[in-house]
Amino acid sequence: MTDGFESTDSNRSGAVLEALRVVRLAEGLTTASGETLRDVQVAYETYGELNAARDNAVLLCHAMSGDSHVARHHPEDSPGWWERLVGPGRAIDTDHFFVICSNVLGGCRGTTGPASTDPATQRPYGSSFPTITVEDMVDVQQRLLTQLGITHLRAVVGGSLGGHQALCWATRYPSWVTTAVVIAASARLSSQALAFDVVGRNAILSDPHFAGGQYYGAEAQPDTGLAIARMVAHITYLSSASMDEKFELDRHRPRELATAFEKRFSVGSYLAYQGERFVERFDANSYVTISLALDQFDLGATEAERRAALSRATCDWLVISFSSDWLFPPAQSRQLVESMTALGQPVTYCEVPTDGGHDGFLLPDEIDHYAPLVAAKLGRRSAHAPAIKPEHHRIVELIAEGASVLDLGCGDGALLAHLRERGHSDLCGVDVDSAKLTAAAQYGVEVLDYDLNLGLPQFGDQRFDYVVIASTLQAVPDVQKMLLDALRVGRFAILSMGNFAYRPLREMFYREGRVPKSPDGVFPYEWYDTPNRRFPSIRDVLDLCEQLDIAVVDARYYALAEEGRSVSAEEDANLAADTAVLLLQRRGHADAPPS
Amino acid sequence: MTDGFESTDSNRSGAVLEALRVVRLAEGLTTASGETLRDVQVAYETYGELNAARDNAVLLCHAMSGDSHVARHHPEDSPGWWERLVGPGRAIDTDHFFVICSNVLGGCRGTTGPASTDPATQRPYGSSFPTITVEDMVDVQQRLLTQLGITHLRAVVGGSLGGHQALCWATRYPSWVTTAVVIAASARLSSQALAFDVVGRNAILSDPHFAGGQYYGAEAQPDTGLAIARMVAHITYLSSASMDEKFELDRHRPRELATAFEKRFSVGSYLAYQGERFVERFDANSYVTISLALDQFDLGATEAERRAALSRATCDWLVISFSSDWLFPPAQSRQLVESMTALGQPVTYCEVPTDGGHDGFLLPDEIDHYAPLVAAKLGRRSAHAPAIKPEHHRIVELIAEGASVLDLGCGDGALLAHLRERGHSDLCGVDVDSAKLTAAAQYGVEVLDYDLNLGLPQFGDQRFDYVVIASTLQAVPDVQKMLLDALRVGRFAILSMGNFAYRPLREMFYREGRVPKSPDGVFPYEWYDTPNRRFPSIRDVLDLCEQLDIAVVDARYYALAEEGRSVSAEEDANLAADTAVLLLQRRGHADAPPS
Repeated sequence: MTDGFESTDSNRSGAVLEALRVVRLAEGLTTASGETLRDVQVAYETYGELNAARDNAVLLCHAMSGDSHVARHHPEDSPGWWERLVGPGRAIDTDHFFVICSNVLGGCRGTTGPASTDPATQRPYGSSFPTITVEDMVDVQQRLLTQLGITHLRAVVGGSLGGHQALCWATRYPSWVTTAVVIAASARLSSQALAFDVVGRNAILSDPHFAGGQYYGAEAQPDTGLAIARMVAHITYLSSASMDEKFELDRHRPRELATAFEKRFSVGSYLAYQGERFVERFDANSYVTISLALDQFDLGATEAERRAALSRATCDWLVISFSSDWLFPPAQSRQLVESMTALGQPVTYCEVPTDGGHDGFLLPDEIDHYAPLVAAKLGRRSAHAPAIKPEHHRIVELIAEGASVLDLGCGDGALLAHLRERGHSDLCGVDVDSAKLTAAAQYGVEVLDYDLNLGLPQFGDQRFDYVVIASTLQAVPDVQKMLLDALRVGRFAILSMGNFAYRPLREMFYREGRVPKSPDGVFPYEWYDTPNRRFPSIRDVLDLCEQLDIAVVDARYYALAEEGRSVSAEEDANLAADTAVLLLQRRGHADAPPS
Repeated sequence: MTDGFESTDSNRSGAVLEALRVVRLAEGLTTASGETLRDVQVAYETYGELNAARDNAVLLCHAMSGDSHVARHHPEDSPGWWERLVGPGRAIDTDHFFVICSNVLGGCRGTTGPASTDPATQRPYGSSFPTITVEDMVDVQQRLLTQLGITHLRAVVGGSLGGHQALCWATRYPSWVTTAVVIAASARLSSQALAFDVVGRNAILSDPHFAGGQYYGAEAQPDTGLAIARMVAHITYLSSASMDEKFELDRHRPRELATAFEKRFSVGSYLAYQGERFVERFDANSYVTISLALDQFDLGATEAERRAALSRATCDWLVISFSSDWLFPPAQSRQLVESMTALGQPVTYCEVPTDGGHDGFLLPDEIDHYAPLVAAKLGRRSAHAPAIKPEHHRIVELIAEGASVLDLGCGDGALLAHLRERGHSDLCGVDVDSAKLTAAAQYGVEVLDYDLNLGLPQFGDQRFDYVVIASTLQAVPDVQKMLLDALRVGRFAILSMGNFAYRPLREMFYREGRVPKSPDGVFPYEWYDTPNRRFPSIRDVLDLCEQLDIAVVDARYYALAEEGRSVSAEEDANLAADTAVLLLQRRGHADAPPS
């Protein structure tokens, strides 16, 4: 998107079609609306080889105006729209996986759509093409795969409308799907997103050349309406920041362009260009058909409805959003994630920081950001866990073999990786640092890209055996809420903390009247330049636990600065220890302390 | 906006027109594009009486689709679009001010526009109406006022396109304007906002019934294109949150409506309704003409350009934005404000917290939020300053008579009000608490609604004699930056702070090993529940000043908890004082300490 006249969208003209295969479904399709489509044909492309066990198939689902050409088939081939994600050695590694992408039902790239011939009339369907849904699209894919001898998918992966298809697959054919990757999608469209689609369709439907959808073979096509629909949609694919970057300084210098549309501003000539190019490769009836399918996709307006819909799924999930996406904003992805976590489903979530808007899922830097998560979900993992800190060893000692663990503020996942090596399987980390989380995911644990300042993600009561809060409490604004939430979600909480009343600190403060710091210890920061915002002593925390009716089941005190020695029971821990590791439990809970 | 079918926009049908007056300008108008409009007529309404001195005129400027009917003229009159702001006893008090609002040039409510008769041809201008600018609109208003015998405006007030007119007035006719109130506007449109306008115009221009703009008297009008343009624009007036609130739960239950537009979703029937109603009262050529004028408004793409444009102004400013406005987002208002503050111009800024989006400037709760600021700018002020805290008295003692003062974290403005009473005139307060700021503005000081966590607003070097930081330093993340910024903007900084090393606190910490607090003193919070995030001692701050090359010109220490006594020079202040008030200056600056 450097000169403003390339589209980031998944288009291509003059595509090399040699790899496009077409099959006819053995049976007709009954749509969700109850109509029957006879003679459905499906156009698709494949990459890699199906293995003998037939368990290495990965289905990719394309977006609104995308197609089956995900990647090159050979060096001279035209590039695909997910070239950077899919191919030999890529995150979706075609040396290992058999990758399939079919053009959607209702579209205009070879799979049956409104421009196809209606066997009943031997004329194009036009407006008599049924109103279809994302479910119908997925049903067609399922029939295709069945005819190809595939009955199971290692993964379904898609962005935007492709993400909605992945959601649909996981809930409609749960036994088929091991992993679903849902990128830049949502449980349903926001009312704002819906409104833009409505306007786009109104532009098409009111174009006089649309002729009620029966324009095939006519002298003029509804190009104007389709171009306007595309212009509206195109704005929603970009962020305001990225548009400013593209057009702000040369706003009054539009490109020369042969068009009937306004070309007064540079952004105007860009939109005209995008509109004009789009009508060359897209069919207005398909646009109406597919956008209506997207608009009707609906896993529910409420948390309860979303949970009911997602409860059918048995896969594990990867959900990815883009920080500046306002069409399917991160908050909508988090809604999905919270329903999944509440259901106890394994899910990894990442919000890619970008100015790229919704189109982020197609942009190179953004793909590079999320590709390692896709690769990890597909089984590519770091062989060895990194070394862990002394503090972490003390935490691990308190965790029973094989227990499930949630690590709040997990950073690069060193503690979780260590537990993974020790044989734990149900592990989850939460952190706000997206880059570190990507590293953590390489150890085969679930990670959630969440700002703990806003509270914990939604988990069921007692979902984990242990919730670890390691050197995190001092940085959160609501300490009480974090402790209580941790002990709702976990049977036990393990809190590790630096002790602000450790003797050398206390004496330094008393003698010098300066905020103490210990360069090699647990308070290494200057008072004016620390990420910490709370400076409790062990006693402060024990007092607060008492107040919150939290029992300290086990307490271990260390002077890590003193060659890591354990503080003995005879000593005053609040004076002698620089670090405390506390095993906590809500009072009145019946669980026996773990061995 | 309760049932989703009322518009918040400034429309009215069947308006009572008895109060609408029409005058013909004495001379023709040469537009910015160099064309001449002969026989310009202007339709306007007025409220209140022009006083003998002719110095109480207030010009109101309406938005894109608004009109001159700002408020009722009598109880049976139809309500106006700013009824809640304008009238007897209202913020813009028609018992005191002579209020004028004229319909804009290029519109379709009585002032010359594309539908008017071209004297040269005796037919409607249609597409031969010149491309006009906001400057041309303002020129027409200026001619009108001149003909009414007015040569000065107490204030120009406008929202959205009206705000752009106010900006234009202040820079084009600076000697006319005492106060400019710029609401929900910007130096120029974002590229995204521009893009939506381009799409709207494309919908109109490509409507076959538009006929190149010469559709007057024809059988069909470009209603479809105009309705689609309105739908796009309407979405941009609302926030995504407000649309969800309106449509999320009953999305699949649209209203029954006679329309050719899609009415499948409730938001669809709403848009169809808005589009259909709009074409009844608006002219497509006017829409194109006015939106183009708005799109061409441009005070500059860069800070330097904006400053150059605004440097012509001599008024004082009130700038108001709405937190969820994504058409003219708060960041754009802050750009204006920062250019004004950098130029040393008096400006008050408020970001109204709301889900109402751009339409916020027309909504009742939002008007109630910003109306007191408008009233204060027009001279309505609190008679008496409130009592100030002991700490503030110590600060005031350090401030020279009549000096200019910036108060960072000014809260409700008690300190500034006190200085105002003492005779200071150049006073400004910054705070993030919008409600408190509104209170502060009542004392006739400038207030800026800014989050100091993001840094100071842009001020010129040494713009103020003093910058006060009273009990604020401990809550900001970047202490060093705040101190250095304060001493760039001010000749002196006055820092008042609680001392964490005050003897009772220090001893409590030493003895008990708990984070100290003093219920009646300066550290009243629990460690887990405090807005503070830094806990320095006096010595810590003095150390930091040394490190930053900041000289402590005067230091006064108090034990406010001990009946407010001053700490004597013999005592160790870091032990004996709970509060320090420090007068600071950058080393190497030549200013003598003030008396």
